[in-house]
Amino acid sequence: MNFKIPRGTQDILPEQSLKWQYIEQKAHELCRRYNYKEIRTPMFEQTELFARGVGDTTDIVQKEMYTFEDRGGRSLTLRPEGTASTVRSYVENKMFGWVNQPIKLYYIGPMFRYERPQSGRMRQFVQFGVEAMGSDDPAIDAEVIGLAMDFYRELGLSNLKLVINSLGDQESRTNHRKAMIKHFEPRIAEFCQDCQNRIQKNPLRILDCKVDRDHELMGTSPSILEFLNETSKTYFDNVQTYLNDMGISYVVDPTLVRGLDYYNNTAFEIMIEGKGFGAITTLSGGGRYNGLVEEIGGPTTPGIGFALSIERLIMALESQGIALPLEEGLDAFLIVLGENPKARAPKLLHDLRTNGITVDTDYLGKKMKGQMKAADRVNARYAIILGEDELNTNQIVLKSLLTGEQDTIPMEEVVGSLVTKLKEEKKGESS
Amino acid sequence: MNFKIPRGTQDILPEQSLKWQYIEQKAHELCRRYNYKEIRTPMFEQTELFARGVGDTTDIVQKEMYTFEDRGGRSLTLRPEGTASTVRSYVENKMFGWVNQPIKLYYIGPMFRYERPQSGRMRQFVQFGVEAMGSDDPAIDAEVIGLAMDFYRELGLSNLKLVINSLGDQESRTNHRKAMIKHFEPRIAEFCQDCQNRIQKNPLRILDCKVDRDHELMGTSPSILEFLNETSKTYFDNVQTYLNDMGISYVVDPTLVRGLDYYNNTAFEIMIEGKGFGAITTLSGGGRYNGLVEEIGGPTTPGIGFALSIERLIMALESQGIALPLEEGLDAFLIVLGENPKARAPKLLHDLRTNGITVDTDYLGKKMKGQMKAADRVNARYAIILGEDELNTNQIVLKSLLTGEQDTIPMEEVVGSLVTKLKEEKKGESS
Repeated sequence: MNFKIPRGTQDILPEQSLKWQYIEQKAHELCRRYNYKEIRTPMFEQTELFARGVGDTTDIVQKEMYTFEDRGGRSLTLRPEGTASTVRSYVENKMFGWVNQPIKLYYIGPMFRYERPQSGRMRQFVQFGVEAMGSDDPAIDAEVIGLAMDFYRELGLSNLKLVINSLGDQESRTNHRKAMIKHFEPRIAEFCQDCQNRIQKNPLRILDCKVDRDHELMGTSPSILEFLNETSKTYFDNVQTYLNDMGISYVVDPTLVRGLDYYNNTAFEIMIEGKGFGAITTLSGGGRYNGLVEEIGGPTTPGIGFALSIERLIMALESQGIALPLEEGLDAFLIVLGENPKARAPKLLHDLRTNGITVDTDYLGKKMKGQMKAADRVNARYAIILGEDELNTNQIVLKSLLTGEQDTIPMEEVVGSLVTKLKEEKKGESS
Repeated sequence: MNFKIPRGTQDILPEQSLKWQYIEQKAHELCRRYNYKEIRTPMFEQTELFARGVGDTTDIVQKEMYTFEDRGGRSLTLRPEGTASTVRSYVENKMFGWVNQPIKLYYIGPMFRYERPQSGRMRQFVQFGVEAMGSDDPAIDAEVIGLAMDFYRELGLSNLKLVINSLGDQESRTNHRKAMIKHFEPRIAEFCQDCQNRIQKNPLRILDCKVDRDHELMGTSPSILEFLNETSKTYFDNVQTYLNDMGISYVVDPTLVRGLDYYNNTAFEIMIEGKGFGAITTLSGGGRYNGLVEEIGGPTTPGIGFALSIERLIMALESQGIALPLEEGLDAFLIVLGENPKARAPKLLHDLRTNGITVDTDYLGKKMKGQMKAADRVNARYAIILGEDELNTNQIVLKSLLTGEQDTIPMEEVVGSLVTKLKEEKKGESS
């Protein structure tokens, strides 16, 4: 029987996994600089959490969730995104009472959506996201946006486009909503069924419609920015001032919306232009959600966050031809010739490895030539050669595969000698 | 509405996540030294894969799998362990044809078993495992065992007990099986129903029975070691010689078995003794599975691997009072006093962070005293103090929270000055 990987999922194979490790390490390190701390929540949650936290009118909840009953009859769902789980943990662990506030968290891990698989859209994909809960200071909005931009920038991406908007506070949104209904209602029959449902429930989401995006009313719909009250306007001005101070360019786009009621004030997306992505693609999105913690059972708590897909990031890096500085290649490859030298290999390898040296050997009984080829293929700096003659005199040949130089040295000095040589070489390279 | 985390799962909160990062980093780094490369497979697979790969008579497959249908009607199962998925990927990606052989892989990630939750046994847990496929050299058995032991040792664990056994090759096992049936059959009625089923299917698994473990026939059952043929005996002798050479202590226990047909030759477990675990607990298990790749649709391929639970490892570290050398604390905390200094904070923070400094600030409008307390609580080395007076003269106060010393320096020098001070301090600490 032949088994296939489930549709819409992928294996990350050795050539790719080093890249993933590098990117995740960058996320850990960057979050440390920004003082965000990692949280890891389970792969699944009670289904109801996502209906509440993501919104039960969304495509995600209506069409895309992996929902199942466990053997105890509970309805569980593989998490389709990270914010709802993070907020569930925030509330359940009463983080609102922790002494260091605001609570600044990040996560990196798989998410699951049953979508039609296509380029850059997988059924299992990995998101890196941050959430800052407990402060309504516009400076933290700028911090969150800055973190996302720094992440891409430090990985080497260019042609990034940051788009920001304000959805205003409750009052501003209520006024805008009325104007939206007034704008679309007279001609709503010209729109798709989804939009006809949206008009009363959530007219803002009409702007997200893919079917009706070219309808003439779209371009003339009232801008949220005209409905911001003084508080919301000052808030948005402050965010923009901070971004300017930080040297982060952006454009304001009043059509950038988040459909759910608990989103407010700052919303942003980071896009990338250029080949491999059609014209332009969204890499990352985020915004402020001052109503969400309450929705999930906690006290009223301001919050802001973003999430981004690592798969899309990797596509973007590839489309721009960016080679990450990965540590590939081994320090050494042990070549053993003959029965007795071969029997000596496990101890020697173990000594080398416990002293920090990356080293491998032949496990297939290859001849000298085959082993030298293997050493080349794994990109080893040194070949350590042990034959019967060397073993009899308790010596070993250490050959640089970069320069071709070789020394014969006593067996017990090989670890120390190699450690020294590698240290000197690395010093030479970094200076 | 209040949401609870699903039973048998846990959130890894900020106090714990640094520990997890450290442990995973150790696994990555150790595998690099041993030249094992990371593979990441999806969280779920076709259900049939596990029935095949794990064994459809096992408790895991019969009682403990999270199985569900996706919206396309396919039966999927959250992976209960890592080997079957890794082998599926090996076969599907034709790794048997890759030029560097053997294929040495490792994985770290969540696994899922619907078990009764108890200490050290979660429904979602994380395994670190390695698989080496394509070599039948006993030196690679020693390598795999050595890697597992090094992992625990380098994290600081002591009181480890390595138990090894040989299950022999097919011929040896067939002979042993006959002897087992002969031994148990006359009195099988005294055993539990499960054992009565096992006797013909797989008599070896009787030795694993928790119900009948004190039955007198258990202690007198024929040892596999007496049935090893010459090839199997030599193989096992070689593994032991290599472990001796590598300075790794072990005991041979002929009752250590793996129930499935495709396991053969080397089997091992790593146990830990001491408080917090009752008498003794298994931390890790592994062995050779020369029949598995074929079972999953690939060519006949020898393989060996192990898997270990990170949750149990952490319990073991805690039970032995081992503090991992985690990098906690921040380089600096920015204290701003007044409206104008506050407005200056986002730029200053961003400059510090893009220069590699870990730094945070107050986002709650606290007074001087509250901000100083916050700086202490996050364990900052320096306080950077910016008040109206400083801002007016374009200066800043840099105060060491370790020594209490403080300097007033020009604003534009703060990044450079702090980078230098931190570099010197870190040099001082490591020398």
